[in-house]
Amino acid sequence: EGRFVLVAGPCVLESLPLALEVASEVKGICDELGLRYIFKSSFDKANRTSIYSFRGPGLEVGLRWLGEVKSTVGVPVLTDIHEPAQAAPVAEVADVLQIPAFLCRQTDLLVSAAKTGKPLNIKKAQFVSPYDMRFVLEKAKEAGNDQVILCERGTTFGYKQLIVDFRSIPIMRSFGCPVMFDATHSVQMPGGLGGASGGDRKFVAPLARAAVSIGIDALFMEVHPNPDEAKSDGPNMIALSDLKGLLAQLIALDDLVKSELGYVDIEEVLPR
Amino acid sequence: EGRFVLVAGPCVLESLPLALEVASEVKGICDELGLRYIFKSSFDKANRTSIYSFRGPGLEVGLRWLGEVKSTVGVPVLTDIHEPAQAAPVAEVADVLQIPAFLCRQTDLLVSAAKTGKPLNIKKAQFVSPYDMRFVLEKAKEAGNDQVILCERGTTFGYKQLIVDFRSIPIMRSFGCPVMFDATHSVQMPGGLGGASGGDRKFVAPLARAAVSIGIDALFMEVHPNPDEAKSDGPNMIALSDLKGLLAQLIALDDLVKSELGYVDIEEVLPR
Amino acid sequence: EGRFVLVAGPCVLESLPLALEVASEVKGICDELGLRYIFKSSFDKANRTSIYSFRGPGLEVGLRWLGEVKSTVGVPVLTDIHEPAQAAPVAEVADVLQIPAFLCRQTDLLVSAAKTGKPLNIKKAQFVSPYDMRFVLEKAKEAGNDQVILCERGTTFGYKQLIVDFRSIPIMRSFGCPVMFDATHSVQMPGGLGGASGGDRKFVAPLARAAVSIGIDALFMEVHPNPDEAKSDGPNMIALSDLKGLLAQLIALDDLVKSELGYVDIEEVLPR
Amino acid sequence: EGRFVLVAGPCVLESLPLALEVASEVKGICDELGLRYIFKSSFDKANRTSIYSFRGPGLEVGLRWLGEVKSTVGVPVLTDIHEPAQAAPVAEVADVLQIPAFLCRQTDLLVSAAKTGKPLNIKKAQFVSPYDMRFVLEKAKEAGNDQVILCERGTTFGYKQLIVDFRSIPIMRSFGCPVMFDATHSVQMPGGLGGASGGDRKFVAPLARAAVSIGIDALFMEVHPNPDEAKSDGPNMIALSDLKGLLAQLIALDDLVKSELGYVDIEEVLPR
Repeated sequence: EGRFVLVAGPCVLESLPLALEVASEVKGICDELGLRYIFKSSFDKANRTSIYSFRGPGLEVGLRWLGEVKSTVGVPVLTDIHEPAQAAPVAEVADVLQIPAFLCRQTDLLVSAAKTGKPLNIKKAQFVSPYDMRFVLEKAKEAGNDQVILCERGTTFGYKQLIVDFRSIPIMRSFGCPVMFDATHSVQMPGGLGGASGGDRKFVAPLARAAVSIGIDALFMEVHPNPDEAKSDGPNMIALSDLKGLLAQLIALDDLVKSELGYVDIEEVLPR
Repeated sequence: EGRFVLVAGPCVLESLPLALEVASEVKGICDELGLRYIFKSSFDKANRTSIYSFRGPGLEVGLRWLGEVKSTVGVPVLTDIHEPAQAAPVAEVADVLQIPAFLCRQTDLLVSAAKTGKPLNIKKAQFVSPYDMRFVLEKAKEAGNDQVILCERGTTFGYKQLIVDFRSIPIMRSFGCPVMFDATHSVQMPGGLGGASGGDRKFVAPLARAAVSIGIDALFMEVHPNPDEAKSDGPNMIALSDLKGLLAQLIALDDLVKSELGYVDIEEVLPR
Repeated sequence: EGRFVLVAGPCVLESLPLALEVASEVKGICDELGLRYIFKSSFDKANRTSIYSFRGPGLEVGLRWLGEVKSTVGVPVLTDIHEPAQAAPVAEVADVLQIPAFLCRQTDLLVSAAKTGKPLNIKKAQFVSPYDMRFVLEKAKEAGNDQVILCERGTTFGYKQLIVDFRSIPIMRSFGCPVMFDATHSVQMPGGLGGASGGDRKFVAPLARAAVSIGIDALFMEVHPNPDEAKSDGPNMIALSDLKGLLAQLIALDDLVKSELGYVDIEEVLPR
Repeated sequence: EGRFVLVAGPCVLESLPLALEVASEVKGICDELGLRYIFKSSFDKANRTSIYSFRGPGLEVGLRWLGEVKSTVGVPVLTDIHEPAQAAPVAEVADVLQIPAFLCRQTDLLVSAAKTGKPLNIKKAQFVSPYDMRFVLEKAKEAGNDQVILCERGTTFGYKQLIVDFRSIPIMRSFGCPVMFDATHSVQMPGGLGGASGGDRKFVAPLARAAVSIGIDALFMEVHPNPDEAKSDGPNMIALSDLKGLLAQLIALDDLVKSELGYVDIEEVLPR
C-alpha cells in the first residue's frame, strides 16, 4: 500500500565513490519527496553483448561496496545474481535479490534465491508472456518464498526493439503478487549499437507515467550522474539531474491512483 | 487544449434506434462530466474477417441515420470511408471523416478525404510504425488539409494479437498534430475467434489510463448497451453502463495531466 | 501440377519500352528453361509510403501497355487493382487479377474481382495470419470464383521488418488452393529508407529456395534491368541479368520436389 | 563439406535403455543412409516452464549414461550445460558441448565451455537477432575456441509463438562458421499448453526442407519412440518411426544443394 517504492542506481558498480554518490543523492531526493528507496547496482554484467565490455567489480568486491552503501547511506540494497551459488553470499548483504530477465526460467537459480528467504525481484523475460510468469512465481513459492515481486521490462518485438505490453501489469498482479515496472530497460534497443545495446531515454517518462497510472507497487530506473559516459546501459539510463522532476510528476499520478482510482484490478488470470 | 474529446458509439450502425439511444445516453454522460463528445458509428464494415458477417446499412441509409443523430441528439458525428468516391457524400453529413487503419496508406482515399476540407481522423495501421505516420500525415497536408488527428489502435504482434506501443503517442504528437487513442480496437484479437475478431475488454481501462497519463487530445471507445450481442466487435466494446465510471477516472487523470504535468513532449522525430 | 509458374516483371509500369523489354527477355529465359511465365506490372502504386513517389501511368494507359505486352510478346499478364470499380475494366485485359496485401480483407474489392471470373492472386496481408486466409478465400468462393491462388509475402515483425513464416505454405495449401511465394516483396523493409520502403535483395535467393523446397505452385519476383534506378521497390527487386541463374537453381529444386519429394501436405487446417 | 551431420536423440535422458534404443536405432538409419550422426540428450532440463516438470537424471548419472551410449553404440555425443562449473566435467564425456538458447549471452558459461577445447554448438536465443550472434561467436573465439557452430531455433513472435527467420542461415554463415538448424525446437509454442511448452510437429518437415535447401552444415531433431508420452518436448519431437522417411527426403535435397547449387553465400554481414 502507499506510494510506489523506488529502486534506482547505476546499472553497474563502476566504483565505490560513484555508488555512494548516487545512493546518497537519490536518498536525499526520495526523503524530500516522501518515497521509500532501495539502491540497485550490479556487481557483474554477466550477459553483455560483447566480450570486450566492462563487467563490474565481481562478487566479492561488489558485495563489499554494497555493504558500504548500506551502512554509509542507510538504504536497503538490491542486486542481481547469475548462478545458484551466488544466492547465499549475496543474501548476506543484499536486502532484495534480483533474477535477471534472461534467467527467469532457470529453475536452480530461482530456487536457490528463494531459499535465502530474502525478497525476490524477478524480471519477466523478453521472451516470456506475462501469462506464463505465473509458473515462474510458482517456482519461487514452491521453494518456500512468498515475497516475490514480478517486474515488467519489455518484450522482444522484431530485432533490436523491445515493446512494453502494459496488459502485463494487471495480469501479473492478478497472480496475487506486487508488480514493478522497469522504466529504463524497457527503452533498451538490444544490440542496437552494434556490439552494445542502445536505448532511447526520452521514452522513459511516457512509459513510467503509463505504468504508474495503471497502478504499480515499485518503479525501477537506472540513473547515473553522466549517462553518456556510463560503462553499461548509458543510452537508456536517465541523468541524476533529471530524476527529481520526473519523480515529482510520477508521484502526483501515483497519489491520484492510490487515493482515488485504485489499481486496475482484473480477475485472476488462469493458466490456459 | 483542455480535456480529451470523447469519440464514442456503437461499432456499426445496427439500427437507427440503437444509434439514437447510444448517442443520447453518451451525450448525457459527457454533459454531466464536462467532456466534448463526437458520436462515431460505421455505415459499412468493409473488411470483416468473414463474408457472412453483418456489414451495416450502407452509405445512403447510414448517412440518413447519422444526420438523424446529429439533429435529434445535437452532437457532431464521425464515420469512416473506404473508397475515394465516398468522401464527398459522407462529408455532407459527417463532421469528421475517418480513414480506417488498413487503408491509411491508400493515397487516393487520403487525398479525396483531405479535399473535402473536413477534419480527418487517420488511424495508424497495425503494420505501420509510428515514425512512418509522418508520411501519411504529409499526404493529407499536401492535399491541402491541416486538420488531421492521428490515432493509435495497436500494432501487429505475432498472430491474433495486437500490442500498443505507447511511444507512438509522443512520436506522433511530435509531428505537430493532435493524437487520439482508440482504447477498444487496441484490445482486439484479430481473427481470434475463428472467422471473427476477438478481444478482451478488461484491458480497455488500463490502456486508456496509460494513454491519458501520457497526454492525448482525444479518446476513442466503442460502446454498446449490450456488447455481447453486438453485430460487430462485441468482445472489445465496453458496456454503456460501464462508461460513466471509466470516464470519471480518466478525467481525473486527464485533469492532472493537463493542469500540472503537461503532455509528454519530445523533439520532432525526423524521418530516418 | 508440374513446375512452378513464374510471375515476374517490373514493380510498376514505368514505360511501355521497359515493360516490353522485361517481358520479352523474361519470356526468352522461361522458354529456354521450360517455365510457364506470366508478366506482372502495376499501373498504379496506390499505397506508396510518400505522396511524392511515382505512381505509374494510371488505369487507362496502363491497360493499353499491358495489352501491348500481351499481343507483342505473347504472354499472359497479371496486374493489381485497388478499388471495386477497377475490376471489370482490368479484367478485359489482364489474365489474372491481383489483390494487394493491404487490401486482402476489403470485401467489396474481393467480390468485384471474383465476379469477373478471372483467376485471382490474393496476397496475404502482413497483418493476417495464414490461418485466417481461409476466410479471405471463402469470400472469393462465395462470390462464385474458385480460381484463387493465395500468395505469401511476409508478415509484420516489429517495425521496418518483415519475416516470412514458411508454415504458411502448407497451411494455405491445406485450404485446397494453390500457393504462390512472392520472393521480392518478402525481403522488403517497410519504411526502412525514410519515406520509402527499403529491402535487401540478397535474401531473395535463400527465401525462394526455401519456398520451392516446401512445394509451391507459383513464384513471384519483381525484376528490373537496373533495380537501383527503378521507380518503385528498387532495393528488393532483382536484376534481370541475375534472373536466369537463380531460376535454374530453383528449377533444379522444384524438379526434385515435384518428381520425388512431393509437396509438403498437411491435413486441412480448420478455423479455431 | 559433404552432407549435413545429424544431431538427434530424445530431449531428455529419460532412462538409459531409452537412450540406448534411440541412439542405436538412429545410428542404424544414418549408417544405411550415409549420414554422420551425433547423439543428443540432456541430463538436466534446467529451464522447464513449470517447477513440477521432470528434469532428468542430473549431471553425474547423465554423464554415465552418455558414456554408456558412446561406448555401446559407438557414436559421438552432444549435451548442454547450464552453469560454468559443468563445462569441465561434461567435456570429459561429451564430444560437443551445447549452450542453450536462453543462455547464449551468459559470458562465463560461453567462456568456460570454450576453454574445454571441445567443439561448441551455440543456439541463437529467441530474443537475439542473427546479426548479433556475431558477438556471441566472438566471445568463444576470444576464449580460444574456433570450433563453433551456430544454431537457428526460432525467434520470439508475439506470445506463445516462435517464427523462423531463414535469413539467419546465410547471415550466421557469413561470420565464417558452420550453421545448424534445429527443426524440432523451431516448432515449439512456448508456454502454449499452460504450464508446459506446446508445439506442432507437422511443421518439422517443411522447415527442415527450407533449411536444407538454403544450405546447412548440421541438422538437429529431437526424436522419441513415442513422443506423446515423452517427459519433455513431446509435442514437437518427431516419432522415431518417421525419421528415416524424413531424412531420405532431406538427403535428396542436401545432395542437390551440395553437389550443384551450393550453399547460399552472402558477403560477411558486418556489425551495424
